[in-house]
Amino acid sequence: MIHPWESDKLREECGIFGYYGKPVERSSAHEDGLSLDAVAMTTIGLHALQHRGQEAAGVTTFDGSEFHTYREMGHVADQLNKPEIHRQLPGHSAIGHVRYSTAGESTIHNAQPLFAEIPTGGFAYAHNGNLSNAQLLRRQLISQGSIFQSKCDSEVIVHLTARSSYRTLEDRLIDALRMVEGAYSLVALTTAALIGIRDPLGIRPLVLGRIERDGSWILASETCALDIVGARLVRSIKPGEMIVISKDGCESHFPFNKAKPKPCIFEHVYFTRPDSIIDNVSVYEVRKRIGAELCAENPVDADLVVPVPDSGTPAAIGYSQAAGLPFELGIIRNHYVGRTFIEPGASIRNLGVKLKHNPNRSILKGKRLILIDDSIVRGTTSSKIVTMLRECDVREIHLRIASPPTSYSCFYGVDTPQRGELMAAQHNLNMEKMCETIGADSLAFLSIDGLYRATGQTRRNNASPQYCDACFTGEYPTKLTDMGETESGELI
Amino acid sequence: MIHPWESDKLREECGIFGYYGKPVERSSAHEDGLSLDAVAMTTIGLHALQHRGQEAAGVTTFDGSEFHTYREMGHVADQLNKPEIHRQLPGHSAIGHVRYSTAGESTIHNAQPLFAEIPTGGFAYAHNGNLSNAQLLRRQLISQGSIFQSKCDSEVIVHLTARSSYRTLEDRLIDALRMVEGAYSLVALTTAALIGIRDPLGIRPLVLGRIERDGSWILASETCALDIVGARLVRSIKPGEMIVISKDGCESHFPFNKAKPKPCIFEHVYFTRPDSIIDNVSVYEVRKRIGAELCAENPVDADLVVPVPDSGTPAAIGYSQAAGLPFELGIIRNHYVGRTFIEPGASIRNLGVKLKHNPNRSILKGKRLILIDDSIVRGTTSSKIVTMLRECDVREIHLRIASPPTSYSCFYGVDTPQRGELMAAQHNLNMEKMCETIGADSLAFLSIDGLYRATGQTRRNNASPQYCDACFTGEYPTKLTDMGETESGELI
Amino acid sequence: MIHPWESDKLREECGIFGYYGKPVERSSAHEDGLSLDAVAMTTIGLHALQHRGQEAAGVTTFDGSEFHTYREMGHVADQLNKPEIHRQLPGHSAIGHVRYSTAGESTIHNAQPLFAEIPTGGFAYAHNGNLSNAQLLRRQLISQGSIFQSKCDSEVIVHLTARSSYRTLEDRLIDALRMVEGAYSLVALTTAALIGIRDPLGIRPLVLGRIERDGSWILASETCALDIVGARLVRSIKPGEMIVISKDGCESHFPFNKAKPKPCIFEHVYFTRPDSIIDNVSVYEVRKRIGAELCAENPVDADLVVPVPDSGTPAAIGYSQAAGLPFELGIIRNHYVGRTFIEPGASIRNLGVKLKHNPNRSILKGKRLILIDDSIVRGTTSSKIVTMLRECDVREIHLRIASPPTSYSCFYGVDTPQRGELMAAQHNLNMEKMCETIGADSLAFLSIDGLYRATGQTRRNNASPQYCDACFTGEYPTKLTDMGETESGELI
Amino acid sequence: MIHPWESDKLREECGIFGYYGKPVERSSAHEDGLSLDAVAMTTIGLHALQHRGQEAAGVTTFDGSEFHTYREMGHVADQLNKPEIHRQLPGHSAIGHVRYSTAGESTIHNAQPLFAEIPTGGFAYAHNGNLSNAQLLRRQLISQGSIFQSKCDSEVIVHLTARSSYRTLEDRLIDALRMVEGAYSLVALTTAALIGIRDPLGIRPLVLGRIERDGSWILASETCALDIVGARLVRSIKPGEMIVISKDGCESHFPFNKAKPKPCIFEHVYFTRPDSIIDNVSVYEVRKRIGAELCAENPVDADLVVPVPDSGTPAAIGYSQAAGLPFELGIIRNHYVGRTFIEPGASIRNLGVKLKHNPNRSILKGKRLILIDDSIVRGTTSSKIVTMLRECDVREIHLRIASPPTSYSCFYGVDTPQRGELMAAQHNLNMEKMCETIGADSLAFLSIDGLYRATGQTRRNNASPQYCDACFTGEYPTKLTDMGETESGELI
Repeated sequence: MIHPWESDKLREECGIFGYYGKPVERSSAHEDGLSLDAVAMTTIGLHALQHRGQEAAGVTTFDGSEFHTYREMGHVADQLNKPEIHRQLPGHSAIGHVRYSTAGESTIHNAQPLFAEIPTGGFAYAHNGNLSNAQLLRRQLISQGSIFQSKCDSEVIVHLTARSSYRTLEDRLIDALRMVEGAYSLVALTTAALIGIRDPLGIRPLVLGRIERDGSWILASETCALDIVGARLVRSIKPGEMIVISKDGCESHFPFNKAKPKPCIFEHVYFTRPDSIIDNVSVYEVRKRIGAELCAENPVDADLVVPVPDSGTPAAIGYSQAAGLPFELGIIRNHYVGRTFIEPGASIRNLGVKLKHNPNRSILKGKRLILIDDSIVRGTTSSKIVTMLRECDVREIHLRIASPPTSYSCFYGVDTPQRGELMAAQHNLNMEKMCETIGADSLAFLSIDGLYRATGQTRRNNASPQYCDACFTGEYPTKLTDMGETESGELI
Repeated sequence: MIHPWESDKLREECGIFGYYGKPVERSSAHEDGLSLDAVAMTTIGLHALQHRGQEAAGVTTFDGSEFHTYREMGHVADQLNKPEIHRQLPGHSAIGHVRYSTAGESTIHNAQPLFAEIPTGGFAYAHNGNLSNAQLLRRQLISQGSIFQSKCDSEVIVHLTARSSYRTLEDRLIDALRMVEGAYSLVALTTAALIGIRDPLGIRPLVLGRIERDGSWILASETCALDIVGARLVRSIKPGEMIVISKDGCESHFPFNKAKPKPCIFEHVYFTRPDSIIDNVSVYEVRKRIGAELCAENPVDADLVVPVPDSGTPAAIGYSQAAGLPFELGIIRNHYVGRTFIEPGASIRNLGVKLKHNPNRSILKGKRLILIDDSIVRGTTSSKIVTMLRECDVREIHLRIASPPTSYSCFYGVDTPQRGELMAAQHNLNMEKMCETIGADSLAFLSIDGLYRATGQTRRNNASPQYCDACFTGEYPTKLTDMGETESGELI
Repeated sequence: MIHPWESDKLREECGIFGYYGKPVERSSAHEDGLSLDAVAMTTIGLHALQHRGQEAAGVTTFDGSEFHTYREMGHVADQLNKPEIHRQLPGHSAIGHVRYSTAGESTIHNAQPLFAEIPTGGFAYAHNGNLSNAQLLRRQLISQGSIFQSKCDSEVIVHLTARSSYRTLEDRLIDALRMVEGAYSLVALTTAALIGIRDPLGIRPLVLGRIERDGSWILASETCALDIVGARLVRSIKPGEMIVISKDGCESHFPFNKAKPKPCIFEHVYFTRPDSIIDNVSVYEVRKRIGAELCAENPVDADLVVPVPDSGTPAAIGYSQAAGLPFELGIIRNHYVGRTFIEPGASIRNLGVKLKHNPNRSILKGKRLILIDDSIVRGTTSSKIVTMLRECDVREIHLRIASPPTSYSCFYGVDTPQRGELMAAQHNLNMEKMCETIGADSLAFLSIDGLYRATGQTRRNNASPQYCDACFTGEYPTKLTDMGETESGELI
Repeated sequence: MIHPWESDKLREECGIFGYYGKPVERSSAHEDGLSLDAVAMTTIGLHALQHRGQEAAGVTTFDGSEFHTYREMGHVADQLNKPEIHRQLPGHSAIGHVRYSTAGESTIHNAQPLFAEIPTGGFAYAHNGNLSNAQLLRRQLISQGSIFQSKCDSEVIVHLTARSSYRTLEDRLIDALRMVEGAYSLVALTTAALIGIRDPLGIRPLVLGRIERDGSWILASETCALDIVGARLVRSIKPGEMIVISKDGCESHFPFNKAKPKPCIFEHVYFTRPDSIIDNVSVYEVRKRIGAELCAENPVDADLVVPVPDSGTPAAIGYSQAAGLPFELGIIRNHYVGRTFIEPGASIRNLGVKLKHNPNRSILKGKRLILIDDSIVRGTTSSKIVTMLRECDVREIHLRIASPPTSYSCFYGVDTPQRGELMAAQHNLNMEKMCETIGADSLAFLSIDGLYRATGQTRRNNASPQYCDACFTGEYPTKLTDMGETESGELI
């Protein structure tokens, strides 16, 4: 079996979406044109967030008296987008979730939203992120008699909320979140409110939007999900902020201790869709500036700038414009891709990579290429792409990477391999060995300061970095309890 | 229900693939490394041709004694790519088919390959194209007692072959094909041979490839399907040529009356993948030259060149390079798209187009755009995209179309609306009215000579055009019997 | 894998049903209470015929302009009985079919009704029976260029009808049937009529019914299908009779040469449901008389009469009443049975038979049993049941079989094993050896004259038997062309 | 939609099965013939218990290190009996469950076994019965922060076990069970043991069996599940007994306060399969004695004794033998029945009942019938059957019911309608009115003492009845906390 799809990419584990429409009567709703179809809005919103998780999708709606949940393995457009499913999910408010997970945990039980009847009533919950003390908390909860339904971090928070001694759901949820460490952006739905919270460091993104024509509110991982449903971006949720949207409107709270924000810098490099805006910055423009920085830091004489599509494309456009070299589609991507392919009896060279990428021979022959990719994880795909291009008789391949070397695992909601599998860690950042492994004529990564400059900073504040860049630097902004962190910060 | 997917595009109706491996013993095969897995090779080849038909896919294999057929609605990667399916399809040779069809006929009964036991033995058949006298032949065959299983044109050919009085399968098939008019490129599988035929005008493409390491042969609609299986392009099949591949090797015949070739020019504009080579010409380079021609024919002062992705992208790159203007991803395409979407209660403006395209606001605001699309069919999508861009506060939109106005229906295997639905026909080619309908600041199409120049011709030979360009000119290269063509060539 | 279900029973291969309602307007229909739901009536009718074929079910309806067909593997109640299926099958007339087939041909392609557009228009066809020259005719048709879709005998008749040179459908169908030999009862649907035909020998049953309240007509394999839809039995269709039901009413024709009827006597022994009436005789009463004849022919001193349920039950009741011995449920049948069961690692003695039958130990212990079964095919099940009963410490087992020894294969629509697999043939009718094989204390079969007496005849007319009893006597009432019958009537 | 299946029957809600094989190595197991296929044994055992619950089925296995659970809606033979399912469920011990539930709760979430990681490790649980204080306990547990996954009573017990402060699983489970009231027979699986418990009153049955050839142990609701897997009945589990089967063998404990046993008497009347033995009594023989008692209590002059099949059959045989009247299959049952049927446009009289039952006209005409059914719940089916028989021109119908009038709801695991829907309660036991409602010529129920006599008692001990007979008498043997029982024992 051959896995063609993003086999050497880091994967965001989740996207979330929340919708709060006016809880008016269904009959009158149709008259005044207000939308009650929270499920349809949420389905469309999740569709725009599909790149954040392709494994499973789910929606919970609340119809004024009951909650309805549907979760299924697969894509939003295939699984949630069915009239018979929508009929089972009435309601004027909803939350939804798309999920990516590692292979071993690929099961419907881990799909979200989670739902529980707790002492304050029905409670639906979905999050994007990862807790770094979830295992510890889970063991403690089991020892107290809590019964878990899934392997999700999120369920720890639901149990803590159910067991909290505070009276209101909001206080219970805050109580629970104060016990966790790590990254989470969450949406929750109760009988009274749609709630959105971004962790105190703001590691994962979360934005607030509004549909002006009917006054409904949206919470979403990215602004592209606001665009698709016709909502205006109100603003990003702030790190540590809790938004409570109810019939009384939208309230903001800051229930956690203040901390210096550390949003994930990799969202700019790869995860987020290029048409999204993170914390007031256009991702597309950041990526183009990355291309320009790459060109400035590592100029090279060449004929063409070729992206590894689609993730390398904006940086390649930026590079091409900065360098004054033609941008060309030297690799064509096949977008009709399933999860695995059956290998024919006799192996085909580079079949895996070809299921997704085919070289555009006519433009490549005899040319010196600047090849742009967003990052290198294990190095396997880069190596195959270089081999594939060599077979087209290119003259030179100068690989330029739109981020610093990925040298450390992420524990905040990104599916990274063990550190030992990361090419940069294996070769101890030795650029020559990496270049040799991949087989390029030259290899260069963006500097960490270059990356910060592309995001609009002057440079990285090394004393207290403006972003979480742990995957590049190993400087984790939270404790890593489950990983057995030692005093010195070294991982065991 | 909202149909997001290519709703205003012409659609190729089919892609075909054939594989002929050595009919050696399975046991020894494993030892000497020869591939017998015709089904795996064909699945991978069809995957590369998925853009030619997303509705249904099918494979027939021959294992030396029996034929095995599997056909299913859906994508190759989802439907054919399963171990349990492959186990049902043993054999060293195979043909495969991907299909697009109009909505009303969307049923598994019309999927190919077709298979029949005929007097010469088992016979599997798949084609790309459309016959313009299939209805007449079908009525004649029914009146003689033939029973049809499908609505496919292809089945007419199978029945004619079954009823032919010639002795060999090859002669029967030629006998059948001499009775049909229209366009077809076909692959057929018998107990003895893999056959490929391109109609005398060569309207649809067909190429021959070979895998050097094991001597197996490939027939495919496009060269990108050779690339993916590691096959070398031997050459395009010639118009009117019959290729017979058997244990005795590969033979070429020309059993039809010679005619001046008329390959479809629209394959260059839109259908074919940009990394494919048609009749020795790189499709990507043709499209880039189209961009350059567009720029030369209709220059305009602007800030950015923006493609409607993905089909407008190569022409936009060509335009950008010719004009010296920056190429930008002003529209981001969502590739996770199902067939239809459920509309929420309150309509969202332009939802349909947004399910596939989102404007990249930050780069667009205040800019004068040259917007490049490949063609305009009904004009509905263009109009929505222009509206969508206007909402991003662009200053000007100059729409440039990478082909002449599509003014006539295709009867040769492309799913075109009735002439009356074509925007160009509706407005009688009135450029101002079309521009007004779409809402752009200016609109220009490529000239027919510009298009011929881009393909490498000096200009269109109006006395006897080098291509079939009937969709632009109404000059159909064959009789149109089923359409009730009158003496004067006017359609009733 | 263990096959629990009827593994040693002969199986009827089909049941058929036809419905002809008034072709009134749908709107007015609802007003005057007339039923137009031909599909619902047919589904219910087929449900009553489910015992005649559990493998696949299908319905074709005609709605006044178009025909609609649905066929699926599985039971009527599971597969046809769905609102979404019924919505696809509008119409005021319909035919339906349930099918049993041998394992190798267990595929949807062989399900009926068959449908074809033929020169006279749409033509749907379903039959019960088997042709003994179908292979020959099939080869001839293929050599003339006909293309077959299935392995069904029935398709031969459809092709012959399509190719007939007669003008009307009725004449074409008769023309076709005059070419076939064997057994068939058929229903057919055209744009004008519902047709029912029973072969000249009347081997398979077919009855005509009418629903008085709305004047609709029914054709069915058995009267139990009339009962369920509330229809009155008009009469059995006569051997060689053709019934044509149209808006002009119900006409009877006798288009074939007159022959002495030979209805299948095994329908009385096993196939038909006991609540059905065949040719004016109650099947339940025949079976009870069989029990009485068995008692008269082979009396034995015993404590209990125990049926092998459910097929042996009526004969056991008859025996019990004749003998004055108590009838007891000594074996309990589990009716929740799927097709195969996975065997546990360590074999369980007699598991196969136990999946369907469990001994009722308390009533059996220490008793002398008269065990009644309908027939013995291979003898495997009888042997297992005897072993199972022995384990309950019964004192004696006297096996009495409600039919003569099954010694010859059926070629008229019943799935019989090869002759060599029949226990009676293997042991050359040696009663002692058979008894020993099965392990009973005594074994007796009903005599052939006893069976004829039970059906109401004085005795078998050996010169020209009143029934087809070939499975007992080897006297086949038709030629057996496909079986290579020699001059002397011996099978090769 | 018409519901044909058992629409007027009380329904047992569950059947349970447990298997404990030797935890030997898989490799050696195959050599010495020991079975490790706990899942196959459990599937077969559940198949024999299918009559106790047809809605959902599930199995949990333990393979020495991990637990594996599969639960699916539908029948055992269709849903659990698949190689791919069995491969997912390795292990040498297992528990399984079949379930029936009321329509509103028909969902996979309520299927069992339940599984939870609790402080003592993995814990799988399945039960048959119903708790009468489950709602109260559930509310208390939720208020303490427990999160429920289902609506099952059983889950209350799992949560109480998880929260218990005792150290061992066995002590925790006993601690939990001491808090519940009602009826339960349970099987549980831990890493160390298979556990079986019958509630202190022994309301629901549970038996212990052993497979001698390999020493494996079985727990099952009925002895028919021992028979099918080839196990010997060791004995019934005693009321209040806890059986713990581990590698150390089978231990018996009595951890609850002693109470006078009250096994459900209705198991004898209807629920249990007639070939099962309950507490040393043959159910078939009880039912035959019921028939004899019915005859003695209410003799009537008639021609035939006819059962409503299958539940009335043993009593009808008993009646027939006692009365010296012929037993006849006057009603034929169709066993191929799905859950609901689509009604045709024009209603068919008595369609619902006919989908399952058809009168055997020939035997009925002009006859005086004694019609035997097991019980009357709402009276709807009885009424339809009487009408159906009247249409066959019977002379007289004397309905005899094999139990006293069902006048009270069951709260111990049987799906009974509200008291107000019970025919006997509606008519205040007025026999004449009930007879009139049903349309019979006479109606009689078995007396309560007659029923006790049939089970082997001299008569009912009214001071302290030997059975739970609350459905007939309203004397509930436990508190009914959730039902809001008042001091006086009257239900609100």
